[in-house]
Amino acid sequence: MAVYTEVTDEDVAAFLREYDLGEVVSLKGIAEGVENSNFLLSTTAGTYILTLYEKRVAREDLPYFVNLMEHLAERGIRCPTPIRGRDGEALRELCGRPAAIVTFLEGLWPKRIKPRHCEQLGAELARMHLAGLDFPMYRPNNLSVEGWRGLVEACGARADEVEPGLAGELAREIAVLEQAWPRDLPEGVIHADLFPDNVFFKGGEVSGFIDFYFACNDALAYDLAVCLNAWCFEPDGSFNATNARLLLQSYRAVRPFSAAELEALPLLARGSALRFLLTRLFDWLNHPEGAFVAPKDPQEYLRKLRFHRAVRGPGDYGLT
Amino acid sequence: MAVYTEVTDEDVAAFLREYDLGEVVSLKGIAEGVENSNFLLSTTAGTYILTLYEKRVAREDLPYFVNLMEHLAERGIRCPTPIRGRDGEALRELCGRPAAIVTFLEGLWPKRIKPRHCEQLGAELARMHLAGLDFPMYRPNNLSVEGWRGLVEACGARADEVEPGLAGELAREIAVLEQAWPRDLPEGVIHADLFPDNVFFKGGEVSGFIDFYFACNDALAYDLAVCLNAWCFEPDGSFNATNARLLLQSYRAVRPFSAAELEALPLLARGSALRFLLTRLFDWLNHPEGAFVAPKDPQEYLRKLRFHRAVRGPGDYGLT
Repeated sequence: MAVYTEVTDEDVAAFLREYDLGEVVSLKGIAEGVENSNFLLSTTAGTYILTLYEKRVAREDLPYFVNLMEHLAERGIRCPTPIRGRDGEALRELCGRPAAIVTFLEGLWPKRIKPRHCEQLGAELARMHLAGLDFPMYRPNNLSVEGWRGLVEACGARADEVEPGLAGELAREIAVLEQAWPRDLPEGVIHADLFPDNVFFKGGEVSGFIDFYFACNDALAYDLAVCLNAWCFEPDGSFNATNARLLLQSYRAVRPFSAAELEALPLLARGSALRFLLTRLFDWLNHPEGAFVAPKDPQEYLRKLRFHRAVRGPGDYGLT
Repeated sequence: MAVYTEVTDEDVAAFLREYDLGEVVSLKGIAEGVENSNFLLSTTAGTYILTLYEKRVAREDLPYFVNLMEHLAERGIRCPTPIRGRDGEALRELCGRPAAIVTFLEGLWPKRIKPRHCEQLGAELARMHLAGLDFPMYRPNNLSVEGWRGLVEACGARADEVEPGLAGELAREIAVLEQAWPRDLPEGVIHADLFPDNVFFKGGEVSGFIDFYFACNDALAYDLAVCLNAWCFEPDGSFNATNARLLLQSYRAVRPFSAAELEALPLLARGSALRFLLTRLFDWLNHPEGAFVAPKDPQEYLRKLRFHRAVRGPGDYGLT
């Protein structure tokens, strides 16, 4: 649920004069996305999304995100495409915040994941990875293995407030992952946050990916590990091997992965589970009283982490 | 900010099969309205608002609201118009809640009130009052004078938590209003909640009223009193007599009001200020820890109440 900044009718009218998009017809705050303020902007030229970037997104990273969306869209990957103003710029200021207008993406995100969603997702993710290979900019993954120790230390002994013994478990986990983390897998641009609410479907097909504000350069297989966690567990915590198999097989049919990537999957999935566990844990322990956005339950990702720790190999994900 | 109920893609697809509105293209929760869950629904036939009525709206009142919007729209008052399904019904169930699809209203609500907004508002409000005169249904105003004592008692001595002495001031105020409240003013359908976020403007004209979920039968001039409070005070608390004069004059040009209505305005404005003061005070004292919606400041309406108490007559609103 997110509209952090109020945009007046005068503000938006003045902003639109920088574009060839006609006059404003309507502007509605969207109750989705927790990082930025998003508005559905209707003009006499069509329907768009207006995003104001709030402080959790670093200003210096915005050109990476905006150029990436444009790069992918030019290569046929459906995603919000930045609209450039009369001056050729896609990023400008509105109400004291960096702001951009992007195209509106049709479709709905799936609230109940079915195997066919995972099958569609795998193929589209592989296509996105291929389309990103010649993207010329670089952004490190700040939330990969190098960033976890700092989060573990920021949570400290208070991790035990979520579950007794958790602080010790995290310390042991991070020691294992730091030592064993794979370093020479094929890299490229990854989405890094491909949860169901960032994947739209229409008529049974993926109609696009949104929310590229964690995108970065990292091992491509890490994106698959994120998806294994976000798409292949049932609400009751059980692992859905059918979803996992369809996700990985349909990915592999578009971009075959190496034996090293296949072998690394359980470790990458542990790492991805730890990453979301840690950020949720930190938010859980540090959310202000009466916060506007309810923090997500860290326990969900603790259970996922433990699942992957027990995995013996990619066969447990339905692959050979 | 409001989306209280999650609607899945399957839910909305099944719901749409009851209508002649084509297939769903997109569904976005809207971060506006605090009573209901509102979604911008795009279908192959057009753009609509889908509303799920949450518990603060009484189920038995819904036919009044829905039929009123239809009645007004048929008489040229721009407001969301309920779409009837194949079975002729405008109200049905979705996700266990009463739900309706209404037309999408273009325009933006004004964040900074200017005199021209008040001038437009007055004339449109008068037109709405005239159009509602032959509406055949009846709903009492539960939040008028008969309802205030219960709210005062529910807040009790805790009112002093907002300002020392407030509980006593409220008791004296309500005694005066109960005794002096005008009973024989011209009545009809009133909106009763015509705050700026419920009035859309486009191209400098009112493009419509929304959110009829407090509408009821009461003195027509009471709606003007609500607008005096909601539209004619500056953010610093000062009264803007220009706004008030334009509001009342433009109303009067469409629906002339009687000497009794004119004389009653200061009292009605005190009552309206008390009504919003009391509901805000109650929410302020009773909002749950970590509530999703921040309660509104009751002090704002306390200041407005004191202003109207000092008014000597309608001349202070710029009228003769």
